[in-house]
Formats: sequence, C-alpha cells, structure tokens
Amino acid sequence: MKSAGIISVGNELLSGQTVDTNTAYLGRELLCADVQVTRHWTVPDDLDAIAEALTLATQSCSVVLVTGGLGPTDDDVTRQALASFLGVDLELREDLLKELRRFFKSRGYPMPQRNEIQAHIPAGSQVIPNDRGTAPGIKAVFKGVPVYAMPGVPNEMKAMLDRVIKPELLAVSGHKIVVKKLKCFGVGESALVSMLGRKMRRGRNPLINCTVDLGVITLHVIGSGTTLQEAEFLVEQDLVFLHKTLGDLVFGEADETFGHVIGRILHERHETLAVAESCTGGWVAKLITDVPGSSGFFKQGWVTYSNESKVQLGVPKKILETFGSVSEPAAEALALGVLKKSGAQHAISVTGIAGPTGATDSKPVGLVFIGTASEQGCEVKKYLFTRDRASIRLRAAQSALHQLWKGIIL
Amino acid sequence: MKSAGIISVGNELLSGQTVDTNTAYLGRELLCADVQVTRHWTVPDDLDAIAEALTLATQSCSVVLVTGGLGPTDDDVTRQALASFLGVDLELREDLLKELRRFFKSRGYPMPQRNEIQAHIPAGSQVIPNDRGTAPGIKAVFKGVPVYAMPGVPNEMKAMLDRVIKPELLAVSGHKIVVKKLKCFGVGESALVSMLGRKMRRGRNPLINCTVDLGVITLHVIGSGTTLQEAEFLVEQDLVFLHKTLGDLVFGEADETFGHVIGRILHERHETLAVAESCTGGWVAKLITDVPGSSGFFKQGWVTYSNESKVQLGVPKKILETFGSVSEPAAEALALGVLKKSGAQHAISVTGIAGPTGATDSKPVGLVFIGTASEQGCEVKKYLFTRDRASIRLRAAQSALHQLWKGIIL
Repeated sequence: MKSAGIISVGNELLSGQTVDTNTAYLGRELLCADVQVTRHWTVPDDLDAIAEALTLATQSCSVVLVTGGLGPTDDDVTRQALASFLGVDLELREDLLKELRRFFKSRGYPMPQRNEIQAHIPAGSQVIPNDRGTAPGIKAVFKGVPVYAMPGVPNEMKAMLDRVIKPELLAVSGHKIVVKKLKCFGVGESALVSMLGRKMRRGRNPLINCTVDLGVITLHVIGSGTTLQEAEFLVEQDLVFLHKTLGDLVFGEADETFGHVIGRILHERHETLAVAESCTGGWVAKLITDVPGSSGFFKQGWVTYSNESKVQLGVPKKILETFGSVSEPAAEALALGVLKKSGAQHAISVTGIAGPTGATDSKPVGLVFIGTASEQGCEVKKYLFTRDRASIRLRAAQSALHQLWKGIIL
Repeated sequence: MKSAGIISVGNELLSGQTVDTNTAYLGRELLCADVQVTRHWTVPDDLDAIAEALTLATQSCSVVLVTGGLGPTDDDVTRQALASFLGVDLELREDLLKELRRFFKSRGYPMPQRNEIQAHIPAGSQVIPNDRGTAPGIKAVFKGVPVYAMPGVPNEMKAMLDRVIKPELLAVSGHKIVVKKLKCFGVGESALVSMLGRKMRRGRNPLINCTVDLGVITLHVIGSGTTLQEAEFLVEQDLVFLHKTLGDLVFGEADETFGHVIGRILHERHETLAVAESCTGGWVAKLITDVPGSSGFFKQGWVTYSNESKVQLGVPKKILETFGSVSEPAAEALALGVLKKSGAQHAISVTGIAGPTGATDSKPVGLVFIGTASEQGCEVKKYLFTRDRASIRLRAAQSALHQLWKGIIL
C-alpha cells in the first residue's frame, strides 16, 4: 500500500472558521484506492508555507494531495507555490481560458478579470478538469512523486478524486479493491469494536474501519486482492462473519439510513407510517423525511409537546394523571391513537425526558418510552439514555426507528 | 500576537474514521487568548512521527498544543514521544496514580493495570489536571517554547483549554481580549462578507471572523487592548456598526438560536406557538425543541406530509385541487388552521418541494411557501432555495423561524 501526504491550504482552517472535513474524506477514500494517508499538514495561504509542506510531503510520501488555494483571489496562492516548488513558471493555457469564459457565459455574466489566473498552471503540469466550478485541478510530478492539487470546495474536490485521481492511483497500485459498508445501530462504538476483536486490527485484509454519524455506526470493509474475485471473496467472507456476529444490530448497507430500509419494506407492502413524538420534538419525522420519496409511505407526524395535544390523539386524561406523560401506558395509548387517527398501518410513539430539567425522583433525565403499533398490537420499550439533551434526543429518535424496523422485518 | 502550532495525533484521523474538529476549535479559542495558529500537523500514533512534528513545531511557533495519544492503550504513545523529544525519562507520579485509582473507584471498579501508564509524565513536566477523564494533560517547556499535551476527547480537551491553558496564554500575552458573537441569518456568507468589506480584513483589531453552522452565520468579534476597557470599547464600536449594517439579519448573540430568541419573546408575553410543516418534515419543530425549556411556549407540531393530513388541519380540498399543496393559498390555510386547531397565539406553516423529484413546469424543486399567522392575520412568503434536498429543507426550516421572529419583534 502506498503512503500519501495531504496538505490543506487555508487561513480559514487555522483560524477555525472552517472545520476541515476534506482530510477525513480523503483518508477514507484513498484507502479504497490502496493508499494510506500517513501525514497531514495544514498551512496558511502563504507561498513559503505551502512550498515547505510540499518539500516535506514529497520527501516522505509516495503521493501528495493538496486541497485549497486554487480560487481567483489574491489569497489563493497554491498554484504559484506549486510552480515555485517545481522550479517552473505559471503558463497561461488558452484552452482553460476558453473553458472559463464558457463557464461564466453559461451562468449569464462575463468572466471577472481576476478569474484569469485560474487559466494558469505550472509549466509541464497536467490539468484535472473541474465540471462543478471554475478552479481546474493540477497534476504535477516531482522526483517521481505525483502531486495532485484540488480545490478546497468539498463537492469539487470529491468529483476530481472520484473521476480522475482514484482511478489513476488504483491503476498504479496493481491491486483490485472492493469496499462494502454495513450500517449498525443499538450498540456503542467501543462495544462493537470489542465484539469484532482482531478482525478490526490494523493492516489486516480486509481492513475493517468504523465511522459514527448521527448515532449510527458504519463499518467499512475494504478488501484488496490481485484480482477482483479475490477481493470480493475476502469481503464476502467478512460480511458473513459480521452479519452472524452482529445480528439485528446491522440494519442496512452502503449509505442507507433507517428511513431507506423502513421505506423499502413499507413500499413493497403498500403500507404506511405515522408518528407522534414528544421529547424528540420532530426529529423522528425529520429522519424519515430526509429520504427522497418518503412521501410514498410516510403519512403524517405529530409533535405532541403539550399534554393537550396527546389527549387530542386519544391518550386518556386518566392515564396522564395516574402515570404521567412519560410512562408505558402513555406511550401505548399514544401509539394506538396515532394508528387510529392516521389510518396508517404502522405507528410510532416517543415520550421521554430529554432534560436538562423535568426529572423527578422516579423519572430521571434520559428515561424514554417508545411505542410501536400495528394491527398486530402494540409494543412499548423502556430506554434510559445518558449524556446531554441533544444526545438523548438523537438516540431516542434513532431507537424509535430501530424498534419499528426490528418489528417489521420479522 | 503569538503563533501556535497544533499537532493532532491519531491513526483514526488519517484513516478518516474521525473528523478532527479539535483543531478548528483550538484555532477559534486561541484567537481569544491572543494567539494565532499558524501551522498544524496530523501524525499517526508513532513515536518518531510525533517527535518529528514536535521538532518542527517548536522551531517555528511560540507555543505548541498537542491533542490525542494520552489514552491507556499501547497505541497511545504521545507521552513517550514527548519524553524522548525532551530527552528525559517518564516518571511515575504517585499523586497521579492515587488520583487515577480514586477515579475508577468512584465509578465502582478497580483500575485496570494498563491505565497505570497514565500516571507517568516526562521528568520535569507539569501536570494539567483532567476532571472529566483518566488522562492528565502535560505541560513541558522546550527551549523556552511551552508545549501543552491534551487528550483528544473533545470535552476533556476543551475543559483543560478553558481552565488552564487559555488563562496562562492570556497572562503571558499582556493583552486583554473581549469576544462577542452575533448570530445572522437571511444572507449568504459571501454576500455578508461583501457587506462588511474591510472590517473583516485580516490583522484588524477587532478581528471579525465568521463561521457557518446549520445555515446560520456566527460573526466572532475579537477585540484586543492593553486594558479591558479599551478592548470592550473597540468591540462595542464594531457591534454598533454591525447592527446598523446588517439590521434584522442579526437575530441573536452568543450561542443563541432562533429557538432561544423566539422562546424568550413568547415566554415574556405568555404566548405559545404551533407549527405545521410539509417539506421540512419535522425539522422546524426539531430546531425549536432543541432548546431546553421549549415546552414552556411550544404547544404542538404537525408534519402534514399527506394531503389528507392538511385537510384534517382545515385546508379546504378545493384549495389543494385548484392551487396544489405547494401554493400561497395552501400555506395560508394551513397556518390559519394550525392557529385555530392548536389554540396557540402564533402559527407557522411550511409547504414546498424539497426534491429531487416532485417538480412541475410551474413549480421547481426548491419552491417553498411559508406562512406565519397570529390574531393580527397571516403573512405568506414565497422562497426559492437552490442546491440539494438537505440544504433546501434546512434553509426552509430556518427561514420559517426567521420569518416568525421578524414578525414578532416589531
């Protein structure tokens, strides 16, 4: 596996105005091109600082990726720094200038003078076309080490990486890489890592990495082989092991969310869903409707923040008075009320104490009841989440979808 | 202003399993301690790599901050690397060992053997206490350059920075720093930067930086003076200018969201709010209920994804048939229906096309109507948002709150 160095260019990264998400993205994606990032520098928009990082990076890594500093302003000096590092001049490329003028014309206004600099690249370098913006990428080679300079704008960088750079790196590596992702929920990251033990050790093939987003863990299984078949076989073996070990903690693949997998099942069965949520305050509905096409199965939602609104949905006042709104009977009545009121085949109810206030002696912050109902009946589960309000709300919302999903896959 | 170098330690940062948010946080916070971050390195959990970065950092910066690699596992080698860089041995500190044992005892189990390494620090270094975890921080001085090593866990790092490191750096700087934040919405970042012109130039005092999160722009005004009064005066002058220039694009201060500022106004007036949202699918309610105590003014919400659910709230079928659900009359009827049904004094309705599908010849993706209603009547505004589904939904949700806020501050 080759080693890569990343250089992030931009004052805004060092002053903390922008969080650098490109570097983590590149780290993950390059592993899928048989390249491991071993060093990373963040430098200001400064000729000497960029050139210095280029010197260190080309000395210690077998490929170098630079992001940022290719814009049209005086602050954007990556192309000059690269030229000076290579010991060449910047050259005007007429084809790039023409392309830039065309880009602006297509948007209905003439090219500003200052954008002309973006038609210049270091003599002897190659252009990496940018179909999403005005800054072309640049590929240079220094003492046998390829240096790729890309814009810092994430979607422009990602497109160049996918279309040009990853294929080039894969071609050079001689290996075939197969990547599969599994989406997991219902377990903490460290508990999951313990469950997988030595399968997750560094340097193993396939490599199993994990990332966490919105409380959902993604396992990346990256297999490498001399043939595609070999890589696929290795990954498939691991997938069998992962499914067996993790069971219904695995709910999806690739970039699927609960919204996708629940939507697919309900869509196939021509069934619909409605939700009523209290402590999650709309987050369950938001997660479902993040998915394009969710209007096909999601009928409606209620955010029942007041007791009055719970009563409107059919929760008996008596239950609220006797057990309180955060209780198993309230969650059950709410789920059944939603089922009836919406006419959907499936209903979710969530009621809990997100904190920081609202706890009582018998009901701590983090206590949440989740109900899932269908014509088969209603199931209510009790959860106790820890940490802060945002974390409790998020885990309650995802747990509600997890509980529904487990109920409908049977 | 002193210059700082940051060294982030961890294989998980280079493989992209974790996005490094600590560095941007440090960049912002150090500016508030009269220190500018000028270089940043990310290195693997490797003795030589860490020592090499320490060498470069102490040569080029006047203070160095290291995050990560202080855990109890074999991978965590920052303290060994620091000792070897300083040319000293690791020393067992009995007081730290006692503290560690106490920490584990308080959590109800004995200290694992491997945690003993966390009671070791390089000879001659100082301890930075950690009241949130097991890894003490370390302060060393190399050729007059202070080096602070902190855990990578964000909340542990932030506590050490606030309690120990920022006060030390401020004491050394001799300057007094005053920081105020303004929250802005309703304008793009580059348009806002243009409006502020040279006030945002680098090196100015006060320094005005901006960050963007969830579509909301935060302006950080950082004033420096030889006395607190001087710094305060400079910042106040800028705040007057900013309020005058930006008008009702500024909706809050410090860490306020629309939920906070709307909640404060409604709370004072003993008024309540209800919402019905279609394309935002619960996001408006979620943003409101992110705020602790929102149950004091937020009565209830409806996610009216189906036409049926809009009719339930009082939108005449005739309107849906004649104008469609994404229309000014539908948004108006929905807002008025919510007002009536909920008994709240204020109502919001949102209906639009979040895409990627659902557009018609006359109604493009991104078209959103937002209604705000009270006993004073109903106002409906038309918006056309660009970009992807998530971005359209987020901006629609924040715009709904912005529209409500503008209506109630009058």
